[in-house]
Amino acid sequence: MQLTAPLDMHLHLRDGEMLDNIAKSSAQTFSGAIIMPNLVPPVSTKEEVIAYKNRILNAIGDEQFTPYMTLFFKPTYDKAFLESIRDEITAIKLYPAGITTNSEGGVSGFDVEELRPTLEAMSELDIPLCIHGETNGFVMDREAEFVSIYERLATAFPKLKIIMEHITTKESVAALDKYENLYATITLHHLLITLDDVAGGMLKPHLFCKPIAKRPEDKVALLKVALEAHPKVMFGSDSAPHPREAKEACGCAAGVFTAPIALQVLAELFENENAPLENLQAFVSGNAQHIYGVKPLPKTVVLEKKPFTVPSSYNGVVPMYADEEIAYSIKEIIYG
Amino acid sequence: MQLTAPLDMHLHLRDGEMLDNIAKSSAQTFSGAIIMPNLVPPVSTKEEVIAYKNRILNAIGDEQFTPYMTLFFKPTYDKAFLESIRDEITAIKLYPAGITTNSEGGVSGFDVEELRPTLEAMSELDIPLCIHGETNGFVMDREAEFVSIYERLATAFPKLKIIMEHITTKESVAALDKYENLYATITLHHLLITLDDVAGGMLKPHLFCKPIAKRPEDKVALLKVALEAHPKVMFGSDSAPHPREAKEACGCAAGVFTAPIALQVLAELFENENAPLENLQAFVSGNAQHIYGVKPLPKTVVLEKKPFTVPSSYNGVVPMYADEEIAYSIKEIIYG
Repeated sequence: MQLTAPLDMHLHLRDGEMLDNIAKSSAQTFSGAIIMPNLVPPVSTKEEVIAYKNRILNAIGDEQFTPYMTLFFKPTYDKAFLESIRDEITAIKLYPAGITTNSEGGVSGFDVEELRPTLEAMSELDIPLCIHGETNGFVMDREAEFVSIYERLATAFPKLKIIMEHITTKESVAALDKYENLYATITLHHLLITLDDVAGGMLKPHLFCKPIAKRPEDKVALLKVALEAHPKVMFGSDSAPHPREAKEACGCAAGVFTAPIALQVLAELFENENAPLENLQAFVSGNAQHIYGVKPLPKTVVLEKKPFTVPSSYNGVVPMYADEEIAYSIKEIIYG
Repeated sequence: MQLTAPLDMHLHLRDGEMLDNIAKSSAQTFSGAIIMPNLVPPVSTKEEVIAYKNRILNAIGDEQFTPYMTLFFKPTYDKAFLESIRDEITAIKLYPAGITTNSEGGVSGFDVEELRPTLEAMSELDIPLCIHGETNGFVMDREAEFVSIYERLATAFPKLKIIMEHITTKESVAALDKYENLYATITLHHLLITLDDVAGGMLKPHLFCKPIAKRPEDKVALLKVALEAHPKVMFGSDSAPHPREAKEACGCAAGVFTAPIALQVLAELFENENAPLENLQAFVSGNAQHIYGVKPLPKTVVLEKKPFTVPSSYNGVVPMYADEEIAYSIKEIIYG
């Protein structure tokens, strides 16, 4: 099985030692990835974007991998600023304030008129807006409650490409077909787990993430659009490493680390669900190329059906399926 | 503030070293408690009941405290056996197979005719049936799905007292008023937390329990019947100690340890909600005396409004509110 130019349209590479420890997990198998800007402080100036990009390139060494950079959304960005930074970024990421790791400086309230100058400028410059769509309501309702905000923004800025990031609910899936300018990323883990897997038996901190895994009917809705490679849906791992100590602690941090096993497990999932390989190819690359207009570096990942025991950790970060066996292995990477 | 003869109608005292470590946490402040039988192996013979009771009495030393013993339900118990054990037990506890800690030997399927001989004998001998009411469905639905089984049993055995243990949903609360022979225990933690507290911010393993904390509207329904001291509702802490290592682990065990702080926090809760002291007295003792027909040892707990910093652990077990300040302290215990 071969996948051409796989793209991860939602990735956390962190910074410093963690960046150095985990960047290659993505760079070895993906052609490129949308890099989330929620560092401390968040990436919000041209200089910070360029500097972060250089630290990423330094961390991946000689791997062929494009970090598609994003800027941390602020409603104060004006058109002149956005024009000046347009060539350095692929998208801008909006976080509601305080909703996930390092999102304290995000948006509070979603007043269209307050956001209008920035969002109209983004629309004119064709800069996609990536949104972590959760309210601060009850944990199982946060994303469904946010759909009305997606709809309000999609209506107010019809030319703005809005990516509903890491969607987890049937309500978000339904919104995809109602608004031409709404798109979505879906993670690997939300195609595989529900809240049952996190808290139905023993509590599993390594499967704890934001948005939290939802109900069985939500997983069914997500699987449907992923397996059929709905043209508005892209793979985005939301792979989010934390040190083991931060996951197995009294207050465990949110995030699942899937980067090193994502393509192998997706191959197994699509096979088990009898979805054609071309759909997987579209889900992990083609759809993203169309939606974002990116042209990834040529790289072909050859997978073989050969059991692989996932390591218990990668440089201190526990991956999904740690110590378990998965069906597919990476056989070869072909460059160029 | 004084509480007379407080009773904990759902308590896990465990066995061995853990029993020795935590028994006094309950025995110092409560007059008595219903002791759950889910040891390994479960308590299911007369000899085991008597031996476990003696180990408990040994662990509590000279505290005035009655362990109301229970038997682990098996559909094979016949009337002769139940008659022989009647004086040693206060109730029989039924676990669906595999639903919580050490419940592997529980009931699979709830066929009324299969259960009839045992349940009719219990009914004739006036032995209450305590049930952990969860199906093996999706974690947020398990208890609501079980309500139809409660209803089936309540209808089939109208003279059998059925206690819906540690209820967590508005559906269970609603069932209370529909069937004369359905009663319920409610824990402290389910009056205080929802799934938001467990998984809405960081993941909190020390608040992870079975049944899992539910939605805000469920908490509202539980609070209502607790604060008004609905006559069919009793306090049952479900205090369930695990060693710290088992809670802060990759697969965290279910259970919240509340025994040492339960009365103090209940006092604070009822005060904050403007519920009269007599309701708290009924919730923590009077209702249980009526429902079970027990006559607890005389013991009066004097609480005072004086901040108390909850220890970070009691003999290696992390309590609810560890290292936090609560408003009430135990001032004095008056015996006799």
